[in-house]
Amino acid sequence: MTGIDIDEVVAWVRDAAGIARRYFNQAEARRKADNSLVTQADVAIEGVLVERIAARYPQHGIIGEEQTNTGAGGEFLWALDPLDGTASFVAGLPMWGVSLGLLRGGVPYLGVVYLPLLDDCYWTDLSGTAVLNGHAIHVAQPRVWESEDWLSVPSNSHRRFTIDFVGKTRSLGCTAASLCYVARGGSAVGALITRAAIWDIAAGLAILRAAGGHATSLTGAPLDTTALIDGRLLAEPVILGAESHVSGLRTLVHQRRTQSEPTRNFSS
Amino acid sequence: MTGIDIDEVVAWVRDAAGIARRYFNQAEARRKADNSLVTQADVAIEGVLVERIAARYPQHGIIGEEQTNTGAGGEFLWALDPLDGTASFVAGLPMWGVSLGLLRGGVPYLGVVYLPLLDDCYWTDLSGTAVLNGHAIHVAQPRVWESEDWLSVPSNSHRRFTIDFVGKTRSLGCTAASLCYVARGGSAVGALITRAAIWDIAAGLAILRAAGGHATSLTGAPLDTTALIDGRLLAEPVILGAESHVSGLRTLVHQRRTQSEPTRNFSS
Repeated sequence: MTGIDIDEVVAWVRDAAGIARRYFNQAEARRKADNSLVTQADVAIEGVLVERIAARYPQHGIIGEEQTNTGAGGEFLWALDPLDGTASFVAGLPMWGVSLGLLRGGVPYLGVVYLPLLDDCYWTDLSGTAVLNGHAIHVAQPRVWESEDWLSVPSNSHRRFTIDFVGKTRSLGCTAASLCYVARGGSAVGALITRAAIWDIAAGLAILRAAGGHATSLTGAPLDTTALIDGRLLAEPVILGAESHVSGLRTLVHQRRTQSEPTRNFSS
Repeated sequence: MTGIDIDEVVAWVRDAAGIARRYFNQAEARRKADNSLVTQADVAIEGVLVERIAARYPQHGIIGEEQTNTGAGGEFLWALDPLDGTASFVAGLPMWGVSLGLLRGGVPYLGVVYLPLLDDCYWTDLSGTAVLNGHAIHVAQPRVWESEDWLSVPSNSHRRFTIDFVGKTRSLGCTAASLCYVARGGSAVGALITRAAIWDIAAGLAILRAAGGHATSLTGAPLDTTALIDGRLLAEPVILGAESHVSGLRTLVHQRRTQSEPTRNFSS
């Protein structure tokens, strides 16, 4: 693992997530959409993690959702989303967490995703295995889908896609978590993601690939993460899962023709 | 409150939820869809709560999702879902909980919904106010919807409905939680529910109505819970929220013409 102490990185992420948990428990955050509070949590978590990474791996680059960008020129680049799922966090929903990935030559190499309310930590261990709380995980095996199978989808999928999947669809509101629920197997059979940045997916992709998963754009092109390192968002929707699930799901998910934003709705 | 000690009922529900939490933490439950384990948790929780209700309120009826049905003839009928959100529970997702409502003359009268992983407890207090962890809550006020507003939807809504809502849609996988996220305001602006039984909605409806919310079928008919007391499911989809949001949402949610189940999909 090229001298990366993954257990130490896992401990950093768990530590930093404690900051978010304290903000989440504040009564103000629970009762209204106070984005300044979320930003405070975001900035505080990013600060703590960037400081530790920079001290321990001074040769590595770091790019963070909030403001960190130390340059992506070297071999290793850390990509950090200090609080993935801010909309969930603000809405008082449980699905949010800290996502810290390491890219090597622009390709996801290792990752840690921690979901505090579940106390679930996903990471790629020293042998390159994907683990959940220390137990090896693997994506769902090929099989006939049933009504209890579920696909993770974006929260705007009702406007952007028609999805002919026989099972359930759920919007978790946290991209990193979506990839992990696919990686763990026995849960989501796949995930559809859109408009993600490198810090949303670097850790989750490393975990998903270590768990045997694949990522392909809706049109079939392979996912090229090097194109995202300058901060650009995914150009096309991407489907992730076991290779056989991805190829099957690609035939069931269609972009709706009207891509324009709908006119605003009024509540009455 | 007709002699109901709601604080005691809240304590019972919190207590009983501890059983589910222990099952959720078992490694087996986390890694595979082990329905027998969920059933064990379900039955254990229902047993504990039914015993306490029967001892304290011997004149009241009790109907539970698992097997309890002591008859609905009297004025008061408790409706219990010991583990609402079993599919979430099995998938390792955080949104599940205990839902205990009391109907009076077939109409939701009081309710307690507890979501263990969030440690969020919603109930109707002695004055008939809806509270979350003891703080009064109220449904979202009328306003223009924006992209960050969200609507709680069933996990099969991609097959059953077209939804032209400008904001987000999320499937929480737990009907009781859906109603509570509408009731709390500052979170979901509304919820669309289908195929719910009385034990799924009795508590949530009492809380939602105490929080100023309404429930109307998609066609505009008022929701009649007395029709569900014999165990029947909702005949029509229902939209819940502040009255102005419900009337606006009704115009945006349309049932798809083909109501038949799709043919089974194959993953490859």
